[in-house]
Amino acid sequence: MVNPLDPEEFRRQGHMLIDFIADYYQDIESYKVLSQVEPGYLKKLLPESAPYYPESIETILQDVQKYIIPGITHWQSPNYFAYFPSSGSTADFLGEILSTGFNVVGFNWMSSPAATELECIVMDWLGEMLMLPKSFLFKGNGGGVLQGTTCEAILCTLAAARDQMLNRCGSEKMEKLVVYGSDQTHSALQKAAQIAGIHTKNFRAIKTSKLRNAVQADVEAGLVPLFLCATVGTTSTNAIDPIEPLCEVAKDFNMWVHVDAAYAGSACICPEFRHFIDGIEGANSFTLNAHKWFLTTLDCCCLWVKDPSALIKSLSTNPEFLRNKATDSKLVVDYKDWQITLSRRFRAMKLWLVLRSYGVANLRNFLRSHVKMAKLFEELVRNDNKFEVMAPRNFALVCFRVLPWPNDNSVANQVEYANELNKELLESINGSGNVYMSSTVVDGAYIIRCVIGATLTEERHVIRAWKVIQEHADALLSKN
Amino acid sequence: MVNPLDPEEFRRQGHMLIDFIADYYQDIESYKVLSQVEPGYLKKLLPESAPYYPESIETILQDVQKYIIPGITHWQSPNYFAYFPSSGSTADFLGEILSTGFNVVGFNWMSSPAATELECIVMDWLGEMLMLPKSFLFKGNGGGVLQGTTCEAILCTLAAARDQMLNRCGSEKMEKLVVYGSDQTHSALQKAAQIAGIHTKNFRAIKTSKLRNAVQADVEAGLVPLFLCATVGTTSTNAIDPIEPLCEVAKDFNMWVHVDAAYAGSACICPEFRHFIDGIEGANSFTLNAHKWFLTTLDCCCLWVKDPSALIKSLSTNPEFLRNKATDSKLVVDYKDWQITLSRRFRAMKLWLVLRSYGVANLRNFLRSHVKMAKLFEELVRNDNKFEVMAPRNFALVCFRVLPWPNDNSVANQVEYANELNKELLESINGSGNVYMSSTVVDGAYIIRCVIGATLTEERHVIRAWKVIQEHADALLSKN
Repeated sequence: MVNPLDPEEFRRQGHMLIDFIADYYQDIESYKVLSQVEPGYLKKLLPESAPYYPESIETILQDVQKYIIPGITHWQSPNYFAYFPSSGSTADFLGEILSTGFNVVGFNWMSSPAATELECIVMDWLGEMLMLPKSFLFKGNGGGVLQGTTCEAILCTLAAARDQMLNRCGSEKMEKLVVYGSDQTHSALQKAAQIAGIHTKNFRAIKTSKLRNAVQADVEAGLVPLFLCATVGTTSTNAIDPIEPLCEVAKDFNMWVHVDAAYAGSACICPEFRHFIDGIEGANSFTLNAHKWFLTTLDCCCLWVKDPSALIKSLSTNPEFLRNKATDSKLVVDYKDWQITLSRRFRAMKLWLVLRSYGVANLRNFLRSHVKMAKLFEELVRNDNKFEVMAPRNFALVCFRVLPWPNDNSVANQVEYANELNKELLESINGSGNVYMSSTVVDGAYIIRCVIGATLTEERHVIRAWKVIQEHADALLSKN
Repeated sequence: MVNPLDPEEFRRQGHMLIDFIADYYQDIESYKVLSQVEPGYLKKLLPESAPYYPESIETILQDVQKYIIPGITHWQSPNYFAYFPSSGSTADFLGEILSTGFNVVGFNWMSSPAATELECIVMDWLGEMLMLPKSFLFKGNGGGVLQGTTCEAILCTLAAARDQMLNRCGSEKMEKLVVYGSDQTHSALQKAAQIAGIHTKNFRAIKTSKLRNAVQADVEAGLVPLFLCATVGTTSTNAIDPIEPLCEVAKDFNMWVHVDAAYAGSACICPEFRHFIDGIEGANSFTLNAHKWFLTTLDCCCLWVKDPSALIKSLSTNPEFLRNKATDSKLVVDYKDWQITLSRRFRAMKLWLVLRSYGVANLRNFLRSHVKMAKLFEELVRNDNKFEVMAPRNFALVCFRVLPWPNDNSVANQVEYANELNKELLESINGSGNVYMSSTVVDGAYIIRCVIGATLTEERHVIRAWKVIQEHADALLSKN
């Protein structure tokens, strides 16, 4: 048996894989964007159990091509416009190679000092690019940490806020704690609240304009306002909560404010978009997902907090087997106490490579190019009176729908009919495999979402996507 | 600006990185295993802020070599014997390349069917290799899921158990729920309990033999026994909780039992080690970390549960933007409801590549070779009467210490003196950079831990490690 980490065999197979992925990117437009397989397809193709004897990498790669790729939805395709992007890049990929290659387990400073220190440095770099107040940076006694996803980041801050509050007002208040979000807040908040043991009846999804009254009513009912999650760029339509007035309400009631800018936060490195996070100095924590729109692969959620000690109080454990001089000296950051898990990957590496390989200038250009393409798409929709734009476009998401024939009195329920029509349209374009878009429902209206953000997307793809939509809409309207 | 995912540039830089990592493995013994940098070293070497203009990959790699590698503790070094191993392999690395390259966000089946289906398949494969009862496999209405780490897995199962219990006995019992572990249970349990909102005074770390009495006393005090975590291969000494009798106690009190075999679970694919998880059919959930001792890089925690619906009830959210036909059909697994986060990486890919590239036969051989080397090391310790083996060796961890001069009456506190001596010895060998081992404290005794498990470790490294220890011990004893 060759050693499973033999450098020469590693080299041979590694080069083979680089070519495999480079070829995949080259051929990516030949695949249907949305996988068209049926549930259970793979079980029919693979053996019942693991092989007893080794198989060659050549055989395995053939199977990846034959069995896996048809079952993949091609998030890296230039014709991918669904959900939010998952924008990979060469720099990120190289960072992942380095971090997987070193495979350090950076739970504390001592287990690999470079992993911790690089993370502190890039989080301050990125914080400054976003013009975050100094109080969120290490140089201002706050600090940033890389988590997996926003769900984890919200859970950590929520646990910190909860324990701080219970410490103040007694653990018997646990059942009284209330968490607030808007009706468009990401489901991550609800899930984090569930996991943190917040009573389900104390989770509020309310219009932001009604926050003060709702909180006041809760206080009068003997409840304890705990946590508010404001969103910059909601998942459905990219709506933006007004941070400043929300923070004022929160301040009056001593609540923790988290600002979730998972998707749109990246754009705030451009001066012209920075105003969307104005008021952030009033919040306690802030997140953006570099793995959405910052050329970084999943997972890489950037969390900044003003008061790291609140996280640490809630999340630290100090087992004997991890004791060391550096920790005892208090001169170092031990990130294990800033997150759910003990073990952690060297994620700072990929963010460092992205920042250095592209530089602030090109990162801004990249984001702007997507917004510009989204404006183009929006214009194409507006210029066709069979279609309607359904929400203000703030970044690179366009919400739209096709309109039913006007004044068709034969249809009893116009709202229902429009929704069904758009559902059919979306299924039709996604079923073609030429593009992939997703949907949402806002105030009862079914809406198609087109987000421009895949790294390989160029203007020609956007124009072609619009043509695909028009063709499918025409076919549908003439059929109905 | 070249497109950040241009296939030809990707190819060029990708090949460069493969050589970089292959060279790293080739040269790995020339680096000091434990990094010797001082806190704050990196800040002095890197610029204050992110570059405005792009930098070349050549420049960046030079900096990795000059600034990062000296700050890394080399977990892949054959001279690494600390904590538990983090055993990478070529197959795993290729799996990471594929999964990063595709960069799919597999929150539900529909977002990339292959990612979900391959995960179900490999979890059944691995479950069968471990001879888990069918009730833990998809083919028996249970199922497996890949999580990041054990902390996450325990938190998910704990939340599921908690919500099931509160559903039964009323949410006002939240404060009464009690979680049990042994005095050697991993700190992950305590952390998960903290995050899940279990009252800190209701966390019990007790000797397993005293479990029944403790639970009985809690019930009599009006508390509600909730969750028991049993460990196969504790972090400190690889002690093994007797699963069967513990499950009997738990059953009598209607508790959820989780079996944590983070490190040792991998070995149970060998028939001769399988008996260590006898009784597993009485548990509700089971974890092992493939990223410890199964040739897989961080992160890859394998969790099996008997009742996935308990997880789903506690962790599911169904926002409008994720609605789809496949989910509505209930023919598919949506893993987002089995874990904390929504977004998830295609981790099954690397596990699939490890299983296929090595096969059951070689995976067993690999694990056995480490156990054999640990036996050798244990023998070396036993044959030197200046040393003492401190705990039974069950897998590939040897706990030992150097003995102070016998009958040296000049030393007032013998226990304290022995502890200080071993602390000094560990610092001395780790400071040399020739090996890296870690420590623990059990019943007041400071113990050095030597775990054989790095992929590149061969017998000659173990023999050399022992020589290093002897030399440093001799120097220390003659000095004292």
